[in-house]
Amino acid sequence: MKPYSQLKKEELSALKGKLEKQFEEIKGKGLKLDMSRGKPAQAQLDLSKGLMDVLTGDSDLVSSDGVDCRNYGVLDGIFDARKLLADMSEVPERSVIIYGNSSLNVMFDTISRAMTHGFMGNTPWSKLKKVKFLCPVPGYDRHFAITEFFGIEMINVPLLETGPDMDMVEKLVAGDAAIKGIWCVPKYSNPTGISYSDETVRRFAHLKPAAKDFRIFWDNAYSIHHLYDDRKDVILELLNECIKADNPDIVLKFISTSKVSFPGSGIAALAASRGNLADARRYMKFQTIGHDKLNQLRHVRFFGDMQGMYKQMKKHAAILRPKFEKVHEVLERELGGLEIGTWTKPLGGYFISFDSLDGCAKAIVAKAKEAGLIMTEAGATYPYGKDPKDSNIRIAPSFPTIEELELASEILVLSVKLVSIEKYLKKQG
Amino acid sequence: MKPYSQLKKEELSALKGKLEKQFEEIKGKGLKLDMSRGKPAQAQLDLSKGLMDVLTGDSDLVSSDGVDCRNYGVLDGIFDARKLLADMSEVPERSVIIYGNSSLNVMFDTISRAMTHGFMGNTPWSKLKKVKFLCPVPGYDRHFAITEFFGIEMINVPLLETGPDMDMVEKLVAGDAAIKGIWCVPKYSNPTGISYSDETVRRFAHLKPAAKDFRIFWDNAYSIHHLYDDRKDVILELLNECIKADNPDIVLKFISTSKVSFPGSGIAALAASRGNLADARRYMKFQTIGHDKLNQLRHVRFFGDMQGMYKQMKKHAAILRPKFEKVHEVLERELGGLEIGTWTKPLGGYFISFDSLDGCAKAIVAKAKEAGLIMTEAGATYPYGKDPKDSNIRIAPSFPTIEELELASEILVLSVKLVSIEKYLKKQG
Repeated sequence: MKPYSQLKKEELSALKGKLEKQFEEIKGKGLKLDMSRGKPAQAQLDLSKGLMDVLTGDSDLVSSDGVDCRNYGVLDGIFDARKLLADMSEVPERSVIIYGNSSLNVMFDTISRAMTHGFMGNTPWSKLKKVKFLCPVPGYDRHFAITEFFGIEMINVPLLETGPDMDMVEKLVAGDAAIKGIWCVPKYSNPTGISYSDETVRRFAHLKPAAKDFRIFWDNAYSIHHLYDDRKDVILELLNECIKADNPDIVLKFISTSKVSFPGSGIAALAASRGNLADARRYMKFQTIGHDKLNQLRHVRFFGDMQGMYKQMKKHAAILRPKFEKVHEVLERELGGLEIGTWTKPLGGYFISFDSLDGCAKAIVAKAKEAGLIMTEAGATYPYGKDPKDSNIRIAPSFPTIEELELASEILVLSVKLVSIEKYLKKQG
Repeated sequence: MKPYSQLKKEELSALKGKLEKQFEEIKGKGLKLDMSRGKPAQAQLDLSKGLMDVLTGDSDLVSSDGVDCRNYGVLDGIFDARKLLADMSEVPERSVIIYGNSSLNVMFDTISRAMTHGFMGNTPWSKLKKVKFLCPVPGYDRHFAITEFFGIEMINVPLLETGPDMDMVEKLVAGDAAIKGIWCVPKYSNPTGISYSDETVRRFAHLKPAAKDFRIFWDNAYSIHHLYDDRKDVILELLNECIKADNPDIVLKFISTSKVSFPGSGIAALAASRGNLADARRYMKFQTIGHDKLNQLRHVRFFGDMQGMYKQMKKHAAILRPKFEKVHEVLERELGGLEIGTWTKPLGGYFISFDSLDGCAKAIVAKAKEAGLIMTEAGATYPYGKDPKDSNIRIAPSFPTIEELELASEILVLSVKLVSIEKYLKKQG
C-alpha cells in the first residue's frame, strides 16, 4: 500500500468513506474493550494458584530466621524474603528491605519522606523553594503523577534507544542543585519497551549531580518479565556499578512481585546502599511495626528461589507473547507501509508504544473510544499529561483475550487511519 | 503490712537487706522476661489458624461485589471488608476505607498527608510556623513518636477516669489555632485501661477548635477487646455524635484487626465523614493502586460478620484474663497496703498502668532489667519520653506465659519495693 502522504485528495476522500463504513459497522457491535492498563489477565493470575495453598493453618509459620510470621515486628522483612527479592534485584540480601504489597507505595512514601525529612540529613524538600525531577519521556504516568502531586517541577528528557539522553541528564544535574531525582524504568521501559544500554547504566553510576541528595529512582518493574526465551534484554546492575564508582548513595532501586504472583497481593522491596537503607528505616520505624510477613513467607515457600520465579515467568510469557504478537500482526498488516504510525517491538514488559503522526494521538484515542475501546489517555506518558507532539499512545495488550485484542487492534488501526486521513485532508485544504 | 512511709529507718534497712537477698536469688536464675509490648501470645495467634485455611487456590477469589481480589485496583477495599470493619467501627459501610496491615501506618500517613498537603484544602502543616497536638497522658508511645518525628509540639493533657480533661481540651483548642489534633485511645486506653464517658465523647463531638483543620485522632484499638463477658465498657460512637453536632469532619477513626486475627497480617481501616474520606482518597490514589484484597477477603470469609469476631474475642479473653489476674494477684498480695504504688484494673485492652512513688519509675524499670525483666521504658507513656513525675510504668501481660508472668511480677514488685525503700531511706537522711 502507498503511504497516505502520497495519496491525492480524492483518493483520501474515497478511502475515508470506505473506512468510515467499516468503523460504523464495528461501532454497531457495542463492544467494551480495554487496552489501557498493564493489568495481568485472569489466566496469568491462575498461574499463582499454588500461592494460596502453600501456607495452611498447620504449616510451620516460623521463618528460617526464627520469626513467627503471624506476630508483630521485623521491620526489614524475614530473611528468606529479603534473599529472594535481593536475588531478583541482583544485589546482596543486606541491601534489601521488604515492604508491603506495592512498589508504587514505596516510591510514593520515599518522595514523601524526602519532602518532610530529607534524604540522609539533607534539607527536607518541602523547605526548598524549588524541587525538580527529570522525566525520561515517554514514561510511566503514575511516576509523573506522584511528582506532580508533591509540587515537584518535571523536566522532559528524551528516552532514546539506549535509555535517557545522558548528555542532557549529565548536563542538567551538574548545573542545577534543584534537580533532585530522575524516574527510570531501566528494563522493558514503560511504555516503549527499550532497555538501558551498559553505557547508560555506567553513566548513571558516575553521575555528578550538583545536589547531594539527588537520587535515581530505578523502578525495575519488568526485571524478569521477558516475552521470549531466546531473546532477552540484559541490563547492568546499577547499585554495584554505583559502588564501584564510589557513588553508592545515588540510587534507590524498587522492585516487586506484582506481575510475578498477584498484582494486588505481592511483596515489594527497596534495594539501596547501607546509608539509604538506614535512612529509610529511621522513617519506617515510626510508620509501622512491620509489613505482612505471612505474605512474605507465602512467596518464599511458593517460589523457593529465583529458579522458581524464572519458571513462573516463562508461563507468564507463554500467555503474553501471543497477545503482543497479535497486536503486532494487525498493526503490520493494516498500517505497514502507510507511514502514519510507528510502534515498538519489545522483548518484554507490558506495553507497545505507538507513535502516530504529530497532533493525532488525542483524536485517535477519542475515536477508538467511540467504538468502545478504552486506550490509555493520550498524553498520559508525559508529565502533566502534555505530549508536546500529541503523538504517543500506550498499548497494553495483557488483559484482553486474544479475540478481544484482535477486535481492539482493528478499532485502533481504523481510528489511526481515519484520523490520519483527516489530517492529510486538512493539509491539502 | 504497714505502709512503707510509716516504717522507721532501721525497719527499712532490715527490710532492704531481706529484699536484696530475694532479688539476688531471682537474678541468679538468669531469666529473660518481657512485659514491654502489647504483643499477643502464641496461643492467641493459634486462634486464627483457620484464617490460613479459609482461602485456597480452588476458592472463589471474587468478592461479593464482583472483584477478582488477586488483581490490581479497588482503592476503598472490597465491599464485604468495608462492611465488616464498618460494623466493628459502628459506622455505616460508606464511612469506611480499608487500608493495609497496620492502623499505625494509616495514622502515620494521615499526619504525613496533613504535613505535605493539608486537610480538606487547608494549609499544609509543613507550611505553618508551629503545629501542636494535645496528648492525653499517660498515653501510647507510638502516637507520640509520630508527632515528635514530624516536629509537632506536644502538650500534655491529664487523662482522667472519664477521659481527657475536657475543660482543658476545650479551652486549649478554642484559644490556639496552632493546635491541630489530639491523640485518643477512647476505649481501654493504652496504658490506663480507662474508657471515655458519654459526656466526654459528646464534648468531643461539640468541640469548637480555632483551627478548621483540627482533627480528633480516635484510635479505637481495643474496641472489642474485652476481658470479661459480664463486665464491659461501652463508649458512645463518636462519628455519629459529630454528625448530630453538625461537626462531621472533626474526627478520624482508626481501627484494625491486628489483635483480633494476626498482629502482622490483619487489615486496617479509616472511618470518617464523606469529606475526610474524599480527602484521603485524593492522596491514596497516587500512593497505591490498591491494598491487599486477598487478605481482606480472607478476613471476610473467616469471620463472616461481627458475631464471628465477638466469638473470636471471647477466646482471646479466655487467654488474656488469667494473665491480667495473675499480675493483679501478685501486685495485690505483695504491694497491697504498702502505699508505694497504685495500679489500674481495666476490663479490657492490653495493659495495666502502674504508678509508683514520684521519682521512682525509671529506677524500678532499671532494677527489673537487672534481673532479666524488660518493661516498657519509664517515661514512654509521655510525650518526649518525659514523665514529669517519673512514676508511670506500663505493664503488658499478654505475651508471657502465666508462669513467666508470675516470675515477672515477682521481679517487678521486688524492684518497686527496693526502689521505694531507697527513696524513703534517702528522705530520712
